[in-house]
Amino acid sequence: MTDKIKVLAFAGSLRAGSYNKALIRAAVEVAPPIMAIETYDLEGIPLYNADLESNLPPKVREFKEKVRVADALLIATPEYNYSLSGVLKNALDWASRPPKGNPLEGKPVAIMSASGGKFGGARAQYHLRQVFVFLDMHPINRPEVMLSDASNNVDEKGNLTNPQTRQLISQLLESLVAWTTRLQIKPQRQ
Amino acid sequence: MTDKIKVLAFAGSLRAGSYNKALIRAAVEVAPPIMAIETYDLEGIPLYNADLESNLPPKVREFKEKVRVADALLIATPEYNYSLSGVLKNALDWASRPPKGNPLEGKPVAIMSASGGKFGGARAQYHLRQVFVFLDMHPINRPEVMLSDASNNVDEKGNLTNPQTRQLISQLLESLVAWTTRLQIKPQRQ
Amino acid sequence: MTDKIKVLAFAGSLRAGSYNKALIRAAVEVAPPIMAIETYDLEGIPLYNADLESNLPPKVREFKEKVRVADALLIATPEYNYSLSGVLKNALDWASRPPKGNPLEGKPVAIMSASGGKFGGARAQYHLRQVFVFLDMHPINRPEVMLSDASNNVDEKGNLTNPQTRQLISQLLESLVAWTTRLQIKPQRQ
Amino acid sequence: MTDKIKVLAFAGSLRAGSYNKALIRAAVEVAPPIMAIETYDLEGIPLYNADLESNLPPKVREFKEKVRVADALLIATPEYNYSLSGVLKNALDWASRPPKGNPLEGKPVAIMSASGGKFGGARAQYHLRQVFVFLDMHPINRPEVMLSDASNNVDEKGNLTNPQTRQLISQLLESLVAWTTRLQIKPQRQ
Repeated sequence: MTDKIKVLAFAGSLRAGSYNKALIRAAVEVAPPIMAIETYDLEGIPLYNADLESNLPPKVREFKEKVRVADALLIATPEYNYSLSGVLKNALDWASRPPKGNPLEGKPVAIMSASGGKFGGARAQYHLRQVFVFLDMHPINRPEVMLSDASNNVDEKGNLTNPQTRQLISQLLESLVAWTTRLQIKPQRQ
Repeated sequence: MTDKIKVLAFAGSLRAGSYNKALIRAAVEVAPPIMAIETYDLEGIPLYNADLESNLPPKVREFKEKVRVADALLIATPEYNYSLSGVLKNALDWASRPPKGNPLEGKPVAIMSASGGKFGGARAQYHLRQVFVFLDMHPINRPEVMLSDASNNVDEKGNLTNPQTRQLISQLLESLVAWTTRLQIKPQRQ
Repeated sequence: MTDKIKVLAFAGSLRAGSYNKALIRAAVEVAPPIMAIETYDLEGIPLYNADLESNLPPKVREFKEKVRVADALLIATPEYNYSLSGVLKNALDWASRPPKGNPLEGKPVAIMSASGGKFGGARAQYHLRQVFVFLDMHPINRPEVMLSDASNNVDEKGNLTNPQTRQLISQLLESLVAWTTRLQIKPQRQ
Repeated sequence: MTDKIKVLAFAGSLRAGSYNKALIRAAVEVAPPIMAIETYDLEGIPLYNADLESNLPPKVREFKEKVRVADALLIATPEYNYSLSGVLKNALDWASRPPKGNPLEGKPVAIMSASGGKFGGARAQYHLRQVFVFLDMHPINRPEVMLSDASNNVDEKGNLTNPQTRQLISQLLESLVAWTTRLQIKPQRQ
């Protein structure tokens, strides 16, 4: 009961018909029973300004709190200009800052990406992984979920129609369950 | 007279006392006579949302126009979480998008960075360079201006007090003059 | 006559049937008349060891000299383990070192890559571009030549059979001609 | 007794007086009792050539076997030209290839770097981390051991004289013990 794995999931895009939001919705559909995914919309998080840290915008406070109580994260990032979106980076920049420390620290995390082009957002994912080093997060290596040619793989209602990607997402979430479980155990060496 | 090199300069930080804004101010002070630097503040550019492209926010339209008429760019980026700031990435994401094409394309560009830590923002600069590949921009390789330990090198009024960095910025701008001049010539092969 | 653009071309693979060697061969076939491509095989360059710099292996000396007299470079890199090949990196490591300075400095360069997988070696290319920053080389941004699924696009004799890639290589070389010509002009500002 | 953590350690440099070999030696000195470090020299691993996979060079076979039986890896990489050394990349390229699969897969790994310059090899480390994604290795995030200005921190006998770095290496190895122990447990969810 109480030992469900709580996953906070968000896409790095504000567009209503975002392909990356479609990936998140597909993840909710294929999530294993042990996993409880809460989807979060980054809309409303303002642009980062250190001068506002002493009076944190409520939406930022909410986001940080959601991250804090999650067991793991699931992030879907667009690739804009060969890197992650400014929208996603901005949310992570806020979350990593005072007050109340960095709730991202130590979190297991799984990545997905979708793009209209042919490399499925790969370039964004490797930049995101470098960000995780500073944040001391623990990303899964495999499978890599990168959806190319997204406009032909997401329907008008924003549903992912590509069965292989749906399958890959299912494997990614299984991987995230195993990885999170492993990282939650307090190892003891005699 | 009219052949001054017009440089649009901006920092990827909104903070009033930003170290990167200090770098930009120092650049204005040491700019060679041939160069006319216009400083631009990214404050007011909203978070990118493709749904707004059909009705472009006025501040974004202004930014794109400023980029378009510039001969070259000068960008000072913070390093947040081992990458460029969300604020800077977001501005570039907007600028690269329709309507009216990508005004960043083909521009010569020089990079600087400042950070409180010890690597002077280096990690942000290499991510930014990958962004430039997609945007088809032409960055200068040398000198690399990376100010470490910024809190001890910028005074309370936000002025850069480190003479070596001031010197480096001067060299960077000389480099940018030469590079921009070179890229403006229409080469002719017989 | 004497103003042909001399291009030194090499692949970062020693394998006889290398897909990247196939790209180089295709480049020789589609090169514009103004360009003279010399193909160089990295076979025989030993592993880099700084202790050998005082008594440079003859093959390394030859490679450095070939680089020095070239107007531009054309490099085809495999992607091994999400980065450039050790073979290619090793050759560049040697070339960049004493004695007689770094002949790579300032060279215009074009990149291609081929891989058996689906992203055509993209990840290797961006690492290679970071290497070029230190070396102060000037890579072309576009077009990006990345051949995926190489085993189905190169025949048994090692010839590239994919017409779109052949076309892209042709565009890349035209781009390299224009870029090299531009960089050779000594700009003069009145 | 038999439950010592076996660590295979190697430097990505062949130079006798290598700063990165000095880091490895310091690691052996400060290793916690639970850890047994075996130092391996990459000298003698030939340049990678896929045509030789069917008849693997003995030194490569040995290296792969050493990796296979290790519980964890400790790698010290030079930074050449803003990336890892060709020597190191070449060894990893060999190890990842057939026959007998990829022994690097799933290994916990800790990274160190030393450079004569001022950023301590940081740029090499992030490239190396991207390599680990493909190899499905599990690197430690912290502490980051990056020794700058190495010529003034390593004595004539090749011993690390910088006490802070020695301390950091000690923390890195403690981290590696905890991380390896964690990854060895087979987690069980009821």
